Amino acid sequence: MFIHNKKLQYTVRVNEPDPVLGTFMLEQFGGPDGELAAAMRYFSQGLSEDDPRRKDMLMDIATEELSHLEVIGSIVAMLCKGAKASMTEGTMEEAELYREINGGGISHTESILYGGGPAFVNSAGVPFNGHYIDTRGEPTVDLRSNIAAEARAKIVYERLINITDDPGVKDALNFLMTREVAHQKSFEKALYSIENNFPPGKLPGDDRYASVYVNTSQGEGDATGPWNSGPQWDRIDDLTKSLPVDGGDGVASVQLASDEMDDLKAAATRTRSNSSEDPTTGADLGAGPGAGRTKEVAAECQ
Amino acid sequence: MFIHNKKLQYTVRVNEPDPVLGTFMLEQFGGPDGELAAAMRYFSQGLSEDDPRRKDMLMDIATEELSHLEVIGSIVAMLCKGAKASMTEGTMEEAELYREINGGGISHTESILYGGGPAFVNSAGVPFNGHYIDTRGEPTVDLRSNIAAEARAKIVYERLINITDDPGVKDALNFLMTREVAHQKSFEKALYSIENNFPPGKLPGDDRYASVYVNTSQGEGDATGPWNSGPQWDRIDDLTKSLPVDGGDGVASVQLASDEMDDLKAAATRTRSNSSEDPTTGADLGAGPGAGRTKEVAAECQ
Amino acid sequence: MFIHNKKLQYTVRVNEPDPVLGTFMLEQFGGPDGELAAAMRYFSQGLSEDDPRRKDMLMDIATEELSHLEVIGSIVAMLCKGAKASMTEGTMEEAELYREINGGGISHTESILYGGGPAFVNSAGVPFNGHYIDTRGEPTVDLRSNIAAEARAKIVYERLINITDDPGVKDALNFLMTREVAHQKSFEKALYSIENNFPPGKLPGDDRYASVYVNTSQGEGDATGPWNSGPQWDRIDDLTKSLPVDGGDGVASVQLASDEMDDLKAAATRTRSNSSEDPTTGADLGAGPGAGRTKEVAAECQ
Amino acid sequence: MFIHNKKLQYTVRVNEPDPVLGTFMLEQFGGPDGELAAAMRYFSQGLSEDDPRRKDMLMDIATEELSHLEVIGSIVAMLCKGAKASMTEGTMEEAELYREINGGGISHTESILYGGGPAFVNSAGVPFNGHYIDTRGEPTVDLRSNIAAEARAKIVYERLINITDDPGVKDALNFLMTREVAHQKSFEKALYSIENNFPPGKLPGDDRYASVYVNTSQGEGDATGPWNSGPQWDRIDDLTKSLPVDGGDGVASVQLASDEMDDLKAAATRTRSNSSEDPTTGADLGAGPGAGRTKEVAAECQ
Amino acid sequence: MFIHNKKLQYTVRVNEPDPVLGTFMLEQFGGPDGELAAAMRYFSQGLSEDDPRRKDMLMDIATEELSHLEVIGSIVAMLCKGAKASMTEGTMEEAELYREINGGGISHTESILYGGGPAFVNSAGVPFNGHYIDTRGEPTVDLRSNIAAEARAKIVYERLINITDDPGVKDALNFLMTREVAHQKSFEKALYSIENNFPPGKLPGDDRYASVYVNTSQGEGDATGPWNSGPQWDRIDDLTKSLPVDGGDGVASVQLASDEMDDLKAAATRTRSNSSEDPTTGADLGAGPGAGRTKEVAAECQ
Amino acid sequence: MFIHNKKLQYTVRVNEPDPVLGTFMLEQFGGPDGELAAAMRYFSQGLSEDDPRRKDMLMDIATEELSHLEVIGSIVAMLCKGAKASMTEGTMEEAELYREINGGGISHTESILYGGGPAFVNSAGVPFNGHYIDTRGEPTVDLRSNIAAEARAKIVYERLINITDDPGVKDALNFLMTREVAHQKSFEKALYSIENNFPPGKLPGDDRYASVYVNTSQGEGDATGPWNSGPQWDRIDDLTKSLPVDGGDGVASVQLASDEMDDLKAAATRTRSNSSEDPTTGADLGAGPGAGRTKEVAAECQ
Repeated sequence: MFIHNKKLQYTVRVNEPDPVLGTFMLEQFGGPDGELAAAMRYFSQGLSEDDPRRKDMLMDIATEELSHLEVIGSIVAMLCKGAKASMTEGTMEEAELYREINGGGISHTESILYGGGPAFVNSAGVPFNGHYIDTRGEPTVDLRSNIAAEARAKIVYERLINITDDPGVKDALNFLMTREVAHQKSFEKALYSIENNFPPGKLPGDDRYASVYVNTSQGEGDATGPWNSGPQWDRIDDLTKSLPVDGGDGVASVQLASDEMDDLKAAATRTRSNSSEDPTTGADLGAGPGAGRTKEVAAECQ
Repeated sequence: MFIHNKKLQYTVRVNEPDPVLGTFMLEQFGGPDGELAAAMRYFSQGLSEDDPRRKDMLMDIATEELSHLEVIGSIVAMLCKGAKASMTEGTMEEAELYREINGGGISHTESILYGGGPAFVNSAGVPFNGHYIDTRGEPTVDLRSNIAAEARAKIVYERLINITDDPGVKDALNFLMTREVAHQKSFEKALYSIENNFPPGKLPGDDRYASVYVNTSQGEGDATGPWNSGPQWDRIDDLTKSLPVDGGDGVASVQLASDEMDDLKAAATRTRSNSSEDPTTGADLGAGPGAGRTKEVAAECQ
Repeated sequence: MFIHNKKLQYTVRVNEPDPVLGTFMLEQFGGPDGELAAAMRYFSQGLSEDDPRRKDMLMDIATEELSHLEVIGSIVAMLCKGAKASMTEGTMEEAELYREINGGGISHTESILYGGGPAFVNSAGVPFNGHYIDTRGEPTVDLRSNIAAEARAKIVYERLINITDDPGVKDALNFLMTREVAHQKSFEKALYSIENNFPPGKLPGDDRYASVYVNTSQGEGDATGPWNSGPQWDRIDDLTKSLPVDGGDGVASVQLASDEMDDLKAAATRTRSNSSEDPTTGADLGAGPGAGRTKEVAAECQ
Repeated sequence: MFIHNKKLQYTVRVNEPDPVLGTFMLEQFGGPDGELAAAMRYFSQGLSEDDPRRKDMLMDIATEELSHLEVIGSIVAMLCKGAKASMTEGTMEEAELYREINGGGISHTESILYGGGPAFVNSAGVPFNGHYIDTRGEPTVDLRSNIAAEARAKIVYERLINITDDPGVKDALNFLMTREVAHQKSFEKALYSIENNFPPGKLPGDDRYASVYVNTSQGEGDATGPWNSGPQWDRIDDLTKSLPVDGGDGVASVQLASDEMDDLKAAATRTRSNSSEDPTTGADLGAGPGAGRTKEVAAECQ
Repeated sequence: MFIHNKKLQYTVRVNEPDPVLGTFMLEQFGGPDGELAAAMRYFSQGLSEDDPRRKDMLMDIATEELSHLEVIGSIVAMLCKGAKASMTEGTMEEAELYREINGGGISHTESILYGGGPAFVNSAGVPFNGHYIDTRGEPTVDLRSNIAAEARAKIVYERLINITDDPGVKDALNFLMTREVAHQKSFEKALYSIENNFPPGKLPGDDRYASVYVNTSQGEGDATGPWNSGPQWDRIDDLTKSLPVDGGDGVASVQLASDEMDDLKAAATRTRSNSSEDPTTGADLGAGPGAGRTKEVAAECQ
Repeated sequence: MFIHNKKLQYTVRVNEPDPVLGTFMLEQFGGPDGELAAAMRYFSQGLSEDDPRRKDMLMDIATEELSHLEVIGSIVAMLCKGAKASMTEGTMEEAELYREINGGGISHTESILYGGGPAFVNSAGVPFNGHYIDTRGEPTVDLRSNIAAEARAKIVYERLINITDDPGVKDALNFLMTREVAHQKSFEKALYSIENNFPPGKLPGDDRYASVYVNTSQGEGDATGPWNSGPQWDRIDDLTKSLPVDGGDGVASVQLASDEMDDLKAAATRTRSNSSEDPTTGADLGAGPGAGRTKEVAAECQ
């Protein structure tokens, strides 16, 4: 069960309202790498985890992310409080208010639709989506997703810090950014506490294809590196010759029942492409007098 | 520029049509961990990458994923070809056709809307979404996302293999699954070829908070592990005492201009919660005779 | 800040696994009327609420809804645990496993993509969407939305109870349903604690139109009720005569600058509909020999 | 059947084009509280309503909302007509045209993608979503949703009025806002015409939990009000002691079959968290020389 | 303004309830090719159309499509009425009710969430999306989109007819399908009433590239047809030789300011791929004893 | 299988960075009419096409569209490269950087979330959606959709050209626009190579309704044209008299089983609208002293 303590995990001191900056901060409230996505990612993993120690870690971090959601949401609320008050009371001149909420980003939507409160959208106004939460129910997979998610959240906070000059906002963002680093470290430890965590899952993969590198992009700029050359790699450069890699005919086929085959033939006959003529088309009809070669044919149809 | 060779990278031999299994395979065609998401993830990274060697790798793997999209799409097309033919020609009894496309999953939608071809949806019919592609434009972040994405794709293929008994489908899926393993290995090599890749990005994080573990979930089951204890961690167990971690008042604040403050007060007055009475409510009005204590009040209003 | 106690608010005792029933329960985990939507609706209102007493209530109920999210998520996890274990280890025959996860609903997606854990989707697999959270930042509006949301959540739980015969699941659902009733009562009390809460917001509305009922749907079945007749209503039955209600010309107009007018005329000329002839069309070209009247014209074009 | 009269329900007189203001107005055309959502909400309820009098009301108001959709759409079309003409004919200097459509909001998208016509998106460009329509097929629920939806629509119109200084636009918006007030009144009358409309639906709820208030958010700011205190409430302040409320063990459990249990154990063994060591991780490998305590271990791996 | 006549445009006589078939019909109620998308496509075009005759046609057909929405919605409501009644009253055994709503498709979601009424989702439960409406504000484009949309709607109705054996449903679907044919004919006439409708829009295109066919897919199966050969086409078969078609270097470039260039170099240095070594990776650490070649390196790190 | 040649199909020479223009270009990268949607539309058709010649054409054009995706993506990457470098290194003053990324459109989101690379969103930040791909698996339908899609893509490129004054960008856009014209011509030829392509699909439609035009929008502005008058049309102007067109009663009906009928009656009774009184409502309770007629009743309840 969750319990709420009215103090924030980190004090939020905003120097002055700035509704546009507020909408930029929504990226970490309702965006793909934001705190709600993080909290629910770990929470959903924790709910079905059977290893009691990992479950404990997942619930710990999920709960802390909810507290971070509260911190970033409070930052948004403070930055937008001035515009919200003006909009609610309607005491400003219309044109002045219009300018205030049209300063950039989606601050107009923030004011008109969300009333100046933190909304579960990203900085472009795109609503939060359940697919941001990429839990797959297998720890050797999910922990890697968590590591990556923490890395993404870290870089987004770094960018928000880079565009903020309000010291109180910068300070709180710095705290939130640092916690993502700490969480990434925890998830790394948890992943490597599982022996044989690679390849993820249970099936081992097929030895014939697991160390092959296919050089599908060719031309000036072709390069080598530890990801495609060295003793652990078999590299394919002659693509045409290698096709298909299984030595078959490289064609897709299926065995149909005879009535299905009959239907298939009937459909093919009905829609077959007539090969012997150059048909007049709608484009031919629609092209103007300067349309050239196919125009003579079309002209006859007018 | 892309060029297409009409041979598949891997031969697809489907034993017999199975439209329901076909819709399950859509998970890797138009689903979040599917081949289109993979191809476009690496392609979008490659387009703006400035390191020529990583760019080469990203374009190589992006292009191969497009070829895998072709393989999994061909599997879907073969599995659905029978139902498609029956639906197109409408020669079956209606009730029989109805049963055929209502065998499970979303095979009805596959037949009715998509006409039995591979559709850019997942196995529940949810359309592909651009946010599946989590490129963030920073290699120490993106490579971790790629590693995680390959792990997710691997486990989904493993599960599809577990439910398939058509040997040709199983065989092709096994190839596709194995290639995810190989790609993960390449991305790992590329990540660790960057010195100082942790923390991701440029800003270092705040030393005061980078090694703190906050034990926010407490009770029976509390546990320790390398992710929250040992010399590298400072652990907080007494949450209330530690609040807020910055030593401030744990409150969110903002300095408003005086006219904003006036508007705020006006709004607060207008919507303030009247504390001295227990108002009759719509629920009171709507509750039936058995509704109890508040009912007397409501009764007077009828 | 949020703190987590490892005990559930309500004990969950599931009699036996049932992955299909589990996917139905997702409606209240990641669906539009589910617990995450509820928790975040009240949480977002609480973050920007300036009335301290309502803020306290909103944070109380938001936090409880998170605890309900944990209860319903645990129900899903328990119901799906058997299928998850079978899928993970792949020890069953493929065909048997296929049947198990194709028993109805989206249990196939639950197993293939989400690995048998609770996912932030509804019972059709549609991902959670930030727009489920309809906070608008005005208490006389938001409290009405909360009342309606609790009513919707109540009826969905009622329906889930109606299709469940596992006594432990039924019991926990009954608790969750009842709490929605309690929350609705709280929100009703909070709404009616605000004097003059109707019309919502600040602007009063235009007296000429506030008591008019427009009878736009006419024919057999036209009816009267307290919503359209009686002393408080002015009813319009003769629609054509009343058009437009403002006494103007009922046309939309705008004053354009002269260069805009020139462009508009140029565009109109270029795309004007030629009135004097019956053009041959693509459909004429494409219709077969039995297409009738317009066919003669088309025939000349072949 | 629907019939269209070419006159608008309310005359639209726009003073001059303003494509940015036009995109703000989209909030009520294709946004969550807009006229299409309203019309389809009541229409979908009307289609399956069995009470003939409510059905009549629902069809009346649904039809009127379609007429409002026409009014607001006409406002958008008029406000954008100038930019549309300039864009279509391309007679302006490119840079000038660029500035004109980049004045704020999403007016660039309006011009580039939608060609200056009203689009089914909100003011941030988010496409209309079928889930805006929250019909649940139970009148005691749906009427509450309708009341809340009208309240939301009213406040959004109020905000649009606050930022508009074109008198013709203001006038038409005022009409539309007022009609939401009238509709809310009708839905209120219809709700309270149903006896025993609370709790909504049929099941009564469990008396043990229906009057309990759980004080889950604690600390400075804890408050009382008619929503959590007084004779009709049993209030829980000591959360830990009350857990779980049903007197059970507060744990989630399920009875698995023996083969499922075997699979579960096998999975747990394979992915168990190794408790006895502090593993070297990817983050350890990636941290630079200044990374501190865990660095020594990592260094050995280079 | 819209007016509603309580009679349907076409009588709906459903023989018996069938909630699964009902959910299939949703494809044309809230799906991409359904009646709401059609009505709103033409309505949005009509609102900003400046040619009075086309505007009249667009409003005529938009209004008729709303009437079709009513017909298909009534079919859904009738097919689901039985399940709705059972669910609402909860008089059936739970297990029996469970089976009834789990007969296929998304009839469970229809019953649990939407209460058995027509919902604005498609047959897989995907919510209606504003982007189904592809109005672009240029008649030579929009009329082509309308023609295509009518063709798609026609084929979806054809498929629904093929799986229905209820004569009343089949009859009404046949009417709706036929009307799509009539509408396509009208839109064709309107398109070809515009002289010079090809290419659509105003800019003529570049003669060097307008008649080129690029044969990018090569191998067994390469074919010719009137779409790529004949006097009106210049065909490119030797792709490599033709690259890039403009005769440039085929590279993307931009001129950066010097400070931007400095930043770019700094970023490149910080994240450059170290070319001289084969780094140990996270995958190396995670691979088990059987992992082969790279294992020796990893082993040293344990 | 796909192969990538590192040269672009068309050289991209961007004069100087312009991150706002870059986000406008996203419309054709990740927008509804963009190159990814085009490529995947034709690719999905090609995968299940059984006519070998059309399949060849579809794979040719799909592959070329991927190459166009690369060109437009490279334009975005070049236009955003300056802002990306500044953001990554954070060497600018915060306020200056803030201004740079807040110049319009969604360039803030581009910088903060996507790191300055091309993202699979449109110019308003809306993520790519699988439903942009409207393949239906029937060539007489799909080819019409392709023709319409090419027309839409053409007009969006035309508009982007109109707002660009960078000659290199303009040049590349002109190439891409022209290729859409060429592709439309190919698809037209392919459509008209199918005999009897109208009506699309197999079922012929009902002769009674295929040539009827229903004049549903009436009033000043009613017009005639080849789409509604002439020998090929039967036009209905007297709508009320014609209702319903089938000569039935214009009502929707279904035959329920007796237990379903009992449930229906029970539900109707429970929720019937009480006709004999004017109930006090929540709005009555909430209206302030100036609320008028219904206020007296409400006053008694206080």
